[in-house]
Amino acid sequence: MPQSAVNRQVLLKARPDGIPQAEHFELVERPAPAPGPGQVLVRNIYLSVDPAMRGWVSAVANYSEPVPLGGVMRSLAVGRVEASRHPDYRPGEIVTGLFGWQDYAVADAAAIQRKVTETDLPMTTALGVLGLNGITAYFGLLEIGRPKAGETVVVSTAAGAVGSCVGQIAKLKGCRTVGIAGGATKTRLCRDEFGYDAAIDYKQGDLSAALGAACPAGVDVYFDNTAGPISDAVHARLAVGARVVICGTASAASWDPPPPGPRVERHLLVKRARMQGFVVFDFAARYGEARAALVEWVRSGKIRYREDILEGIERAPGAIAGLYRGENLGKRLIRIAAEA
Amino acid sequence: MPQSAVNRQVLLKARPDGIPQAEHFELVERPAPAPGPGQVLVRNIYLSVDPAMRGWVSAVANYSEPVPLGGVMRSLAVGRVEASRHPDYRPGEIVTGLFGWQDYAVADAAAIQRKVTETDLPMTTALGVLGLNGITAYFGLLEIGRPKAGETVVVSTAAGAVGSCVGQIAKLKGCRTVGIAGGATKTRLCRDEFGYDAAIDYKQGDLSAALGAACPAGVDVYFDNTAGPISDAVHARLAVGARVVICGTASAASWDPPPPGPRVERHLLVKRARMQGFVVFDFAARYGEARAALVEWVRSGKIRYREDILEGIERAPGAIAGLYRGENLGKRLIRIAAEA
Repeated sequence: MPQSAVNRQVLLKARPDGIPQAEHFELVERPAPAPGPGQVLVRNIYLSVDPAMRGWVSAVANYSEPVPLGGVMRSLAVGRVEASRHPDYRPGEIVTGLFGWQDYAVADAAAIQRKVTETDLPMTTALGVLGLNGITAYFGLLEIGRPKAGETVVVSTAAGAVGSCVGQIAKLKGCRTVGIAGGATKTRLCRDEFGYDAAIDYKQGDLSAALGAACPAGVDVYFDNTAGPISDAVHARLAVGARVVICGTASAASWDPPPPGPRVERHLLVKRARMQGFVVFDFAARYGEARAALVEWVRSGKIRYREDILEGIERAPGAIAGLYRGENLGKRLIRIAAEA
Repeated sequence: MPQSAVNRQVLLKARPDGIPQAEHFELVERPAPAPGPGQVLVRNIYLSVDPAMRGWVSAVANYSEPVPLGGVMRSLAVGRVEASRHPDYRPGEIVTGLFGWQDYAVADAAAIQRKVTETDLPMTTALGVLGLNGITAYFGLLEIGRPKAGETVVVSTAAGAVGSCVGQIAKLKGCRTVGIAGGATKTRLCRDEFGYDAAIDYKQGDLSAALGAACPAGVDVYFDNTAGPISDAVHARLAVGARVVICGTASAASWDPPPPGPRVERHLLVKRARMQGFVVFDFAARYGEARAALVEWVRSGKIRYREDILEGIERAPGAIAGLYRGENLGKRLIRIAAEA
């Protein structure tokens, strides 16, 4: 890296009330940093865009500290080691971590999530199906949902980066899978690409009736990324002993205060059902186990994935809002540098 | 029993929309039945009155078939074997079972829950603290709530037949216990009789603030018998990893459709909390284990209980509505015959 390199950064300019929009961010240019002793300088290549970022910029209670105003937007990224003052890392190695929406990041070794060694697979998979999306699907479904062969698993945002992986893992475990997504393109993707036994377009017709037809014996596992009217329809069809994995709450623009909905307690009581929140970071010590399984499934073609790659860091500020509008097909990434 | 004995029965006359009231029942007199081969004739002495009866008479989906119109109201009872055509039962033995709101019941052996052998304890305990109330508290708290020593356990309807037992078991397990009840008498009972570390009168002042003061480190286990605004206040104060036991839903007069309330998903997600419905009948194979523990705790004075005994079967029809008005202090029973 030339000493004069510029570091473009996307900073959080204002705290959004609901979904973060482009105007809540600001693109600035700063001098690229230099690594201190024990640190590594990473040149980011792909930045991740995730629904969870809405929570990361919110001042409302969450599972992590809010991104400070004026700070670089928190984000996973995959990049190349540009310079290293740590013995375990060498220039040219590919690494992932919470490097932020910026060209260059200086990271302590502890801040590096991992070295990417599946050089036979696209580098982008490190942020999607082999990254937190796939790992979220893996632990959320298997550890919280605990599906058994023959059970019916319903997934909301079923064609998304997490949902599509959940559906395919459930299928690999012998479950009947039902995907809920918005629009004909996504439901077609659910059936043709991600192998769902049934796919329901929640924007068309009677969701409750469609669910009833698709789940004649009720819903044993509901992997929920939405938490709104879609979930209300699913809750009413839970089977005895059902498990509801609360992985995301995309349906509501704001949770402060929580929006109203039909109370769930009677469904849970009558069906002895369990509804449980899930944050993938709690499984950090076991990421390797999930990734080993996912790598094998991806290599063997048992799990497919879709990506939606935007070009240029200037696309970052508006990219979260686009996710919430459902404009992406698959894992959303931003390419900010050439792979090699 | 003289051949001419009369069997007073309380029949379900009309299906209530919400809480069953006296006018939904009818008291009739029929000839007392005679046991067939393998059957036992039971003379009921105490009838049980439970919040769950609201669900038993409802046509809405539930965990058991609704009581048919014109049928004897389903109820637990404790009584004396009057005549037996089964080798395991002899006249004079005390038994419990779903004998219904009536003077006499004919029961197959399978319908008898158990013989009452704790003759040193009041017969009434067989329906309360040593019956399904205590067993519900035991399994709901220990198996679903899974409290650990040092954790904070919050109980709604904390002075009730189930709640008071939950609070005391939690205390025995080394937890800090906080009871929520309505009115000064019940909160005093919580503190002085049932050993809660703190008791909150939800009818007075700011429930949320009182909860915050009583649970500075948040709520680890919430044993919920209400599912309304009380629960909304508790959900907002769940600790990371909290468990919510959905044991009852007393706050709503009707669950068809479910009443609205703030959506819970964001609380569950952020706190990685679990909310799980619980029906004691699922633990039927393990009742003996719970009862053995409860008998010992009651005998040693480690668990206290209160009873609210009404006199005469004509009090039965209005007794459920009274429960929902909170007019009882402790387990509600109806005495319909002398103990000996």
